[in-house]
Amino acid sequence: MSFSADIHCQAAELLLASKKVLIFTHQRPDGDALGSSFGLKYFLEHNGIKAEVFIPGSIPHRHTKLFSGFFSRISAEELSTFDTFAAVDCANPARLGVPDFLTIDALRQSRFINIDHHGGNSMESGFFNLVSPDSSSCCELLVDILTCAGKEIPEKCAQFFMTGMMTDTGCFRFSNTKAHTLRTAALLLEAGAQLEPIVNAVFFSKPVTQMRFENELMQNHLKFASEGKIAYAVIPDELTEKHNFNIKEDEGLIDLLREIDGVIIAVLLYHGPGGIKISMRSKDSRFPVGPVARAFNGGGHELAAGATFEGTAEEAEKALIAKLSDLFA
Amino acid sequence: MSFSADIHCQAAELLLASKKVLIFTHQRPDGDALGSSFGLKYFLEHNGIKAEVFIPGSIPHRHTKLFSGFFSRISAEELSTFDTFAAVDCANPARLGVPDFLTIDALRQSRFINIDHHGGNSMESGFFNLVSPDSSSCCELLVDILTCAGKEIPEKCAQFFMTGMMTDTGCFRFSNTKAHTLRTAALLLEAGAQLEPIVNAVFFSKPVTQMRFENELMQNHLKFASEGKIAYAVIPDELTEKHNFNIKEDEGLIDLLREIDGVIIAVLLYHGPGGIKISMRSKDSRFPVGPVARAFNGGGHELAAGATFEGTAEEAEKALIAKLSDLFA
Repeated sequence: MSFSADIHCQAAELLLASKKVLIFTHQRPDGDALGSSFGLKYFLEHNGIKAEVFIPGSIPHRHTKLFSGFFSRISAEELSTFDTFAAVDCANPARLGVPDFLTIDALRQSRFINIDHHGGNSMESGFFNLVSPDSSSCCELLVDILTCAGKEIPEKCAQFFMTGMMTDTGCFRFSNTKAHTLRTAALLLEAGAQLEPIVNAVFFSKPVTQMRFENELMQNHLKFASEGKIAYAVIPDELTEKHNFNIKEDEGLIDLLREIDGVIIAVLLYHGPGGIKISMRSKDSRFPVGPVARAFNGGGHELAAGATFEGTAEEAEKALIAKLSDLFA
Repeated sequence: MSFSADIHCQAAELLLASKKVLIFTHQRPDGDALGSSFGLKYFLEHNGIKAEVFIPGSIPHRHTKLFSGFFSRISAEELSTFDTFAAVDCANPARLGVPDFLTIDALRQSRFINIDHHGGNSMESGFFNLVSPDSSSCCELLVDILTCAGKEIPEKCAQFFMTGMMTDTGCFRFSNTKAHTLRTAALLLEAGAQLEPIVNAVFFSKPVTQMRFENELMQNHLKFASEGKIAYAVIPDELTEKHNFNIKEDEGLIDLLREIDGVIIAVLLYHGPGGIKISMRSKDSRFPVGPVARAFNGGGHELAAGATFEGTAEEAEKALIAKLSDLFA
């Protein structure tokens, strides 16, 4: 097999030379992970190649309207029928959603295609890696790859890829939106993607219980620091239980704080496995939260980062707000 | 002067052949009206042509960060120094924001350039009209016109035009977003437009008082009909006064109802001049609100429409919800 010079075309050739592909993504998959997985699956099937998606566990409720038809369990015997494995949108092996018996070492030695947009990706397949930190989303990257192959993108795939692009860019609002991102989205519209179902399923499907939880949180637990530049809330367990709230289902919760006039940094603190979970967003590149997260042994992006604090919520709040306030000192 | 075949190029030629342009737009200008007005003004000035924007009254608070430098008053003498008038983003003479002494008849007989994206535009300049209902926004249309001229779009203009495009498309979420819209936005990003300031000013600048108003409204006044398919709220005057709320400043209020899972039609009713103002949004083209608005002598688009009801709030609520419920019968 001869390779095209461009790495995107190499990726396309390798994928299209597969016989049967099992697609993995990161645990607790979001819109981009799901759009990438299902978009790739259906593209391969459209081109006569068998493909399946594996996701351990469930997917967020609002995504169930758009995504279905995946394996949650697989036997070693079934696994052996696949000649190729693909990882999409996953930055490191610890987060990869694979069957318990499949080790990263085994994967790395197989025909394993790693496609991702997170800088610092440590999947390190021994076969093929394409990591593109400039891509807004793994979906955008996959469109680059698949269009390389000179193949049309079927409407169903276009819809999946558009979903991932819209969720990872916050509907083209976040700074990862580049001119190429918008042109890729234009291409997907022309391939038949429709915005309305995505927007309704992803942005306009808030359960009433979630709405009531959010109202009560904002009415009773919202605090400010640094003259309103920092807005934060410590989510009490009682409130979560009262409304049967699951924070994994509410990626947009922190935006309620972020959207307040004058607020530059929005913070949520809540109880989770391992300690107090901290989630932070900054509206202004001059006041990044990435370094603050790293100071608490966490990580993420410069404007969206998090950490886990071992201690009480009061201790977490005190230490964190002091650190964030220093940004404005 | 010879005209280019394409009407966009004709518009560009006429604008660039002007000596001094006074730009009008619709009353209570929104992001697209402001982006169009100021984008056009600075483009003309960049090309050595004097231009001013006229806006009677004030502009919404969240837009004051981005738009400034316009006339609110002008004398007949000053007006006579302009050789050209332009109307952008205004569908009809009644809504045009002009000085009291300037009649539509006088405008129609002058060198008056009418540029708009509303189908059914009735400005009817006797000189030049370009109405493009397929454009997502007047800003998108202006970019089409100005790029025709073979001139670069300066960064400042790109920023203004991007603002208008983002507000009229709800950040590329509404169905007026086409492939051409996204490609135009890509072009503006390359011309130096930045999303972050627009997103922050337009979407992430909610005053705390507004947030408190919204919370209280949703907690205490939200109602449902047709098994949750209709969500509505009658805004009491006492609540508005308590939080010093101005509905004109909160275009996004109805989205709080629209975003609830299961809701197809969202409705707000509030007291205004002339009666009870009705504002409706539909999430699904199969259940349009346009016809319902027209049944109440109102109007608008199929998925976003309104009316004014002469009577009490209770009467309005009863009549309207009955009519909307019929859609789901």
